[in-house]
Amino acid sequence: MKKIAILGSTGSIGTQTLEVVSNNGDMQVCALAAGGNISLLEEQIRKFGPRLVAVWTEDKAKELKEKIKDLDVKVVSGMDGLLEVAAVPESDILVTAIVGMIGILPTIEAIKAGKDIALANKETLVTAGHIIMPLARRHGVSILPVDSEHSAIFQSLQGGRQKEVAKLLLTASGGPFRGRKRKELMNIQVEDALKHPNWEMGRKITIDSSTMVNKGLEVIEAKWLFDISTEQIQVVVQPQSIIHSMVEYVDGAVIAQLGTPNMKLPIQYALYYPERRYLPGDRLDFKALSQITFEEPDMETFYGLKLAYRAGKEGGSLPTVFNAANEKAVSMFLERKIQYLQIPEIIQACMEQHKNIESPTVDEILNTEKETYEFIKNRW
Amino acid sequence: MKKIAILGSTGSIGTQTLEVVSNNGDMQVCALAAGGNISLLEEQIRKFGPRLVAVWTEDKAKELKEKIKDLDVKVVSGMDGLLEVAAVPESDILVTAIVGMIGILPTIEAIKAGKDIALANKETLVTAGHIIMPLARRHGVSILPVDSEHSAIFQSLQGGRQKEVAKLLLTASGGPFRGRKRKELMNIQVEDALKHPNWEMGRKITIDSSTMVNKGLEVIEAKWLFDISTEQIQVVVQPQSIIHSMVEYVDGAVIAQLGTPNMKLPIQYALYYPERRYLPGDRLDFKALSQITFEEPDMETFYGLKLAYRAGKEGGSLPTVFNAANEKAVSMFLERKIQYLQIPEIIQACMEQHKNIESPTVDEILNTEKETYEFIKNRW
Repeated sequence: MKKIAILGSTGSIGTQTLEVVSNNGDMQVCALAAGGNISLLEEQIRKFGPRLVAVWTEDKAKELKEKIKDLDVKVVSGMDGLLEVAAVPESDILVTAIVGMIGILPTIEAIKAGKDIALANKETLVTAGHIIMPLARRHGVSILPVDSEHSAIFQSLQGGRQKEVAKLLLTASGGPFRGRKRKELMNIQVEDALKHPNWEMGRKITIDSSTMVNKGLEVIEAKWLFDISTEQIQVVVQPQSIIHSMVEYVDGAVIAQLGTPNMKLPIQYALYYPERRYLPGDRLDFKALSQITFEEPDMETFYGLKLAYRAGKEGGSLPTVFNAANEKAVSMFLERKIQYLQIPEIIQACMEQHKNIESPTVDEILNTEKETYEFIKNRW
Repeated sequence: MKKIAILGSTGSIGTQTLEVVSNNGDMQVCALAAGGNISLLEEQIRKFGPRLVAVWTEDKAKELKEKIKDLDVKVVSGMDGLLEVAAVPESDILVTAIVGMIGILPTIEAIKAGKDIALANKETLVTAGHIIMPLARRHGVSILPVDSEHSAIFQSLQGGRQKEVAKLLLTASGGPFRGRKRKELMNIQVEDALKHPNWEMGRKITIDSSTMVNKGLEVIEAKWLFDISTEQIQVVVQPQSIIHSMVEYVDGAVIAQLGTPNMKLPIQYALYYPERRYLPGDRLDFKALSQITFEEPDMETFYGLKLAYRAGKEGGSLPTVFNAANEKAVSMFLERKIQYLQIPEIIQACMEQHKNIESPTVDEILNTEKETYEFIKNRW
């Protein structure tokens, strides 16, 4: 029986991971970590019976302990708690469905403890790919993508070899503002940007999808996951989100993964890799499907994507700046403190003032994030 | 150095196979067999230096011997010649690019001699799949598809497992008459039917593509190649011929192979499998490509496809009748002896009068073909 631990069990990926576990019925959940949703966490504990649970604050830890005092579950908190869950001795695989830079240290700890990683935390590879990937190789653990696009590439790489890959074709829906020019985006309100055409996602990632910054982060992630240069990663706008991504091989063959939008597919694929199992849900119906269309991404209007390519190519601490600046800018936009078009402006300004550190340590990465936040706070 | 033998070296697949061999420069051609094109065969002999060559008739053999009397090449003829080429001791792989039932016996001989088969001869599996596939398993040889659609499925199956396959999605261009109804096909002339929208092919196969009989033969082939029921094979019309075919897995993931129309890709993939190598030629350009569309096949108008499903499902000697009746009907249409719409009519009539043989021997298969020809000759 495979044993799993989950960081971020009450979020969207976390709850869907537990649904997959529940549907299959042959995995054991040994540890969970969550933020503030104590009542959902309690439900999960009662249903899946982990022996170790982490929450972020001590107050929440106390609250949880009180709720589950009838159970024999160890409750821990803070970063130490996250690290304990990440490296819990009996687990085989860690699902990192936690959001933000907070995911980096636990992921490193888990890799050192020999756990495979089902990776849903974008920041880990974007900011620390140069640390994570060599570490994973050294410890012989697999980094399995949980993201829809990266999973599609990973699936399309099965049976192929690294040296046979010509390029990766990362598909993008183009978001709700696809086809618009910059001046048409001047008065975009929070409500407009939160309407994603194909996927139901959290607020931050929905905004990132509208600016194509999300795709930019995926380009940087793909570079590390698949050991390829950013020049070999092409973003293809495919508005119906049916082709989830593709790989072009040296012989010209393009292998693609298509499907309905269903995050449980990449989650289950990562958990049971290389095995595929039955998954309930809709299937692509080629009788109903009339067309798949393609467009080039508009990197002038959505120049956050262009900035991501630059950050990914230069590497070092620049991707951390890109990510941190975007995170702060999006949160300011959601708080209605800045205009929509200021999001890429702020990212660009932060990148321009940054003195790149070639191969930053985790401390330097975290410090770069802090400095970026400071810079934004002082200027906007 | 891999050593190959080719049946049908002067045809379209044969010449493209030799181009692939020539481009790669690390395969040795040890034997060739061809029909009547002696001058091209001579060129091939001088360029690739096989030690054994077969031609069909004794006259052509004499003619060839005279042309290459300065070379140390053994020239053989007839079925014995084909069998000798198929099982030439030093070869690793046999490319069966010969057309017609004539391909069955040499393929069997090659399998018995332990050769892998790069299969381009449709009739082999359509009529004798129940003999060929178990024989190949017993001798531990691989049957590698050279056809574009089957190669796409084969590529999409890499990294997956047999029991994980939900269905095969065989794509079809729909041919030049896609969208038309039966009464609009009444006055179709040979010239109209020879215009294929996407692929340059021989006359017979171009007609087969216009009637969708070609797709029907592919359904039957796929059943044997991939050990799957005809119910699990769905034909999807994809008029741009960009998706070459797909596999749907039990988890809902659809893996597809896309590409430009280039037969050298499946040929090279079969010859070097599981390796992929650089192949000169155009690449799919998603910047230029605007759309891929899908339609259901119209099995009422193109009921040759429906008949193929029936033949494939019932099995036995019925697929032989289907194939032989079509072959004869197409040749009569090309000779302007019958109307276009009589092609499926003749197939259906032949199938209806046939008493199915459950698991026919090669002799019974060849005899069924002969009887079908006789039946047509006497009736039309």
